[in-house]
Amino acid sequence: MKIALLLNTDKPNCFTVAFEVCNHLKKLGAEILLDQSVRNQFLAPDTHYMDFDSMIQDCQILVALGGDGTILHAAKRAAIFHKPVLGVNVGRLGFMAGLESNELDRLSCLFSGDYMVDHRMLLQVTIENQPGIYYALNDAVVSKSSLSRIIDIDLALDGKDIASYRADGMIVSTPTGSTAYSLSAGGPVVDPEMSGILVTPICPHSLFARSILFRDDKKIRLTASCLSGTDAYLTVDGEQGRLLSPGDCVHIQKAELEASILRIKRQAFYDVLNEKLINRRS
Amino acid sequence: MKIALLLNTDKPNCFTVAFEVCNHLKKLGAEILLDQSVRNQFLAPDTHYMDFDSMIQDCQILVALGGDGTILHAAKRAAIFHKPVLGVNVGRLGFMAGLESNELDRLSCLFSGDYMVDHRMLLQVTIENQPGIYYALNDAVVSKSSLSRIIDIDLALDGKDIASYRADGMIVSTPTGSTAYSLSAGGPVVDPEMSGILVTPICPHSLFARSILFRDDKKIRLTASCLSGTDAYLTVDGEQGRLLSPGDCVHIQKAELEASILRIKRQAFYDVLNEKLINRRS
Amino acid sequence: MKIALLLNTDKPNCFTVAFEVCNHLKKLGAEILLDQSVRNQFLAPDTHYMDFDSMIQDCQILVALGGDGTILHAAKRAAIFHKPVLGVNVGRLGFMAGLESNELDRLSCLFSGDYMVDHRMLLQVTIENQPGIYYALNDAVVSKSSLSRIIDIDLALDGKDIASYRADGMIVSTPTGSTAYSLSAGGPVVDPEMSGILVTPICPHSLFARSILFRDDKKIRLTASCLSGTDAYLTVDGEQGRLLSPGDCVHIQKAELEASILRIKRQAFYDVLNEKLINRRS
Amino acid sequence: MKIALLLNTDKPNCFTVAFEVCNHLKKLGAEILLDQSVRNQFLAPDTHYMDFDSMIQDCQILVALGGDGTILHAAKRAAIFHKPVLGVNVGRLGFMAGLESNELDRLSCLFSGDYMVDHRMLLQVTIENQPGIYYALNDAVVSKSSLSRIIDIDLALDGKDIASYRADGMIVSTPTGSTAYSLSAGGPVVDPEMSGILVTPICPHSLFARSILFRDDKKIRLTASCLSGTDAYLTVDGEQGRLLSPGDCVHIQKAELEASILRIKRQAFYDVLNEKLINRRS
Repeated sequence: MKIALLLNTDKPNCFTVAFEVCNHLKKLGAEILLDQSVRNQFLAPDTHYMDFDSMIQDCQILVALGGDGTILHAAKRAAIFHKPVLGVNVGRLGFMAGLESNELDRLSCLFSGDYMVDHRMLLQVTIENQPGIYYALNDAVVSKSSLSRIIDIDLALDGKDIASYRADGMIVSTPTGSTAYSLSAGGPVVDPEMSGILVTPICPHSLFARSILFRDDKKIRLTASCLSGTDAYLTVDGEQGRLLSPGDCVHIQKAELEASILRIKRQAFYDVLNEKLINRRS
Repeated sequence: MKIALLLNTDKPNCFTVAFEVCNHLKKLGAEILLDQSVRNQFLAPDTHYMDFDSMIQDCQILVALGGDGTILHAAKRAAIFHKPVLGVNVGRLGFMAGLESNELDRLSCLFSGDYMVDHRMLLQVTIENQPGIYYALNDAVVSKSSLSRIIDIDLALDGKDIASYRADGMIVSTPTGSTAYSLSAGGPVVDPEMSGILVTPICPHSLFARSILFRDDKKIRLTASCLSGTDAYLTVDGEQGRLLSPGDCVHIQKAELEASILRIKRQAFYDVLNEKLINRRS
Repeated sequence: MKIALLLNTDKPNCFTVAFEVCNHLKKLGAEILLDQSVRNQFLAPDTHYMDFDSMIQDCQILVALGGDGTILHAAKRAAIFHKPVLGVNVGRLGFMAGLESNELDRLSCLFSGDYMVDHRMLLQVTIENQPGIYYALNDAVVSKSSLSRIIDIDLALDGKDIASYRADGMIVSTPTGSTAYSLSAGGPVVDPEMSGILVTPICPHSLFARSILFRDDKKIRLTASCLSGTDAYLTVDGEQGRLLSPGDCVHIQKAELEASILRIKRQAFYDVLNEKLINRRS
Repeated sequence: MKIALLLNTDKPNCFTVAFEVCNHLKKLGAEILLDQSVRNQFLAPDTHYMDFDSMIQDCQILVALGGDGTILHAAKRAAIFHKPVLGVNVGRLGFMAGLESNELDRLSCLFSGDYMVDHRMLLQVTIENQPGIYYALNDAVVSKSSLSRIIDIDLALDGKDIASYRADGMIVSTPTGSTAYSLSAGGPVVDPEMSGILVTPICPHSLFARSILFRDDKKIRLTASCLSGTDAYLTVDGEQGRLLSPGDCVHIQKAELEASILRIKRQAFYDVLNEKLINRRS
């Protein structure tokens, strides 16, 4: 089996864990592919260094070492090539990891087939009259610029205007993204096994600050009508910032692609939720 | 066509509207069935007075006159006999009405088939080791008694404990119920076309006060572990209060029954949502 | 110095700590007064058992062993006799304790004068046309009964109606009480050194669910206009439940009495706040 | 009496109201001062056009025509010269206006002394090691830039670190500002007659998202520790944006200056609050 290994080289203990992962995988008979851009930092024997896309295309499974952010971006890249991702957690408790770094002996489960596959919905994001498709595994956010005071955002559903918000911004998220930025903005937790599109306003002037969860076949359109001298931005999964022109329509809908995230460890979404969030009393 | 008519006799203008509805329906050739318990208050010529259950069983459509509460309860009773309900709104703007009281000429649509049918999920609620099934179109609530200070509620999912809340209570609601009590407790709006089970704590001591939306095939179990001298209650759709004994387990899951709610007016869920909630700026 | 000792005998380790406290205080030359009702459970040599009120009147300082609830009630009782309270924490981290149970050697500070006195505002609560004054160190709550669906509560300020809430209830709290029930209902933290009256609705139907903080010279009046068949309750500091008749007016204002709470440990309000609440990331 | 008149020339009906105000004031014997920058747009007979600061210094009262924003900024400018402001509302209901544009005959109250003076606290904002003092009548905000993902903000009180927030930003507001941006971010309403400093996080990652109200003698220090490649901004009353360098300390405390806002109309803060916010049921 060919396994591609992706590292978040910003995490201090990433290299130690990566060496251990390599050793386990090699003992299990895997061929290990690495991104050639890390060769200077991480030189492991008996591995293949390739360009990123070839590495993903060539592998059967992508193993990503890092926190939720690293695993998220790996899963999105892998989804384009229809490859599954196993996240190995190197850091504090997260929702995306399928294995903790102290459970590496269980990597053998990848070979015995003893794992779960979580299928996660992606959003497809486009700007009207502009080329390019963005994919979001967490969220697409339309927000004011730092120096703007406020923006007006019109929300349409299947082409029909349904509401207008005066706010700092709007978050459109997948169930997976419900525990990311949307949670900070006051949104609910949505079981990542569900399908649905969650819309959460950021600091709305309106008294109605609640999230709305739409069915996953709805097509969302956000139009930021900026007041004089203010700008709006589109950000996808916290990384692609794009300045919007006045009147730009952002279209968001369920993508045909989906991410496949492997899970070996027994701890599932609700265990992490419970440990991270619920069982904390004041 | 046999049409049963249900009135909320507490609403002051209910009788006037009821006479108009009768006149319209009779002109359209319908046979009108009425609950015999209203005969003293509402005596209409050429109608049939029957006991409630026979009336529902005998009709093709149940028309309910009142507010959201009246229509909700009518829809639940009708669901047991697999009959659809048309709510005629007699009051302020609501989510459940399929026709406003100033649109009665459009009752002819019932005969031409020119209407929508909204299928709404019900919850089935039982108490372990006790007979009786309750159905909720909005919500099932386990809450402390007035004089209790707090209760501990354990939440299990498919038989597995996932969290423990110290709170005033817990609301388990359908998407329909997301705009009822759950909204007051801080929950999100869930598109009533969706399927899912929304769990919202009431005044939790925990810092984590967010709703969680589960897939509709999950089985919820709530166990109230009362502190000394305190009681817990189960309330279903705001009407059936039942004292729980310490350790009583309340089981909640999607019912096989569903409610069928007719809609003639063009105004749909998001129009009402927008008018009632969103477009109100401070 | 005469020191009265109050125990929460429900706490399992209360007696052990109480013996240690007695030993320390006796070595320091204090005369120890105890409530005669605990004589069967806690028999300490060289101490005086008296009835509760005499004990409070006779002492210079009341030392209360327990959690926030115990210390709160002790402080209120002591306030009536203008006596200060030192809370010794026997349990998890709290806001009211002036000493932790592993810091008992610092009880000598009571004799050297090396302590802080926190003056805490009390609310005075009366029901119109009824005898009796209640004092609240945390809060006065008007709420629906368990089986009521909702109540309407009118809020007046200095005799002038300012708002009407349809809600599960209303919490009127001191700054001290802002970290108690009000926090669970969504209220802010108010520095306990401040003076002010915080009003927080519980699960309001209105979209406006925010707390309002009034100046401490305002007189609050709450009138619960119950819908048919529903009851309202007045609860003070979570302990005195009193059924309200329809139209009963509850008057709440700053009391002339205030509680004096001693603090020996260096850890102050913001340390506890930080440890209990703020530094918890998802 | 010399009265300076300040116009928000962006409001469409501003000039009409301004002419009426001039007429009323001239009949009452006032001398009217105008900013020379509006001479091209608003040329009124028998008035004096002067530079802005001279106009403020020379007048006894500043009358500001516009919405809350206009009146806020007028009040701040006037406060520096210890002059009172009367806001005349030209737009939708606001908290700052002391007179509605259909009540202009009551301008005579300015001459008879038949008005209230609301004294409003200002915050004084400085950046450590940088010249310049900013004054806030609403709020000072430290926030991430549009393209940053998150910032860490340390909050110190009287020089002592009390908490660290990972958030989109932090709002430090006066009671007056509690109904502005802080309300959108989830903060409480604070009676503008009170004194106090309200700190509200914007979209915090921490589960603890509540505002904290400090006593007005506390000195607040915010330090934004930006993650790699991200920036933080300081904004005062929504208008002065200033890029902060990593480690810049922003000091915020009650200013010695205060704003004096005149009120003629009978409608006071709680009437506006009630009309704008509270009496809206879902």
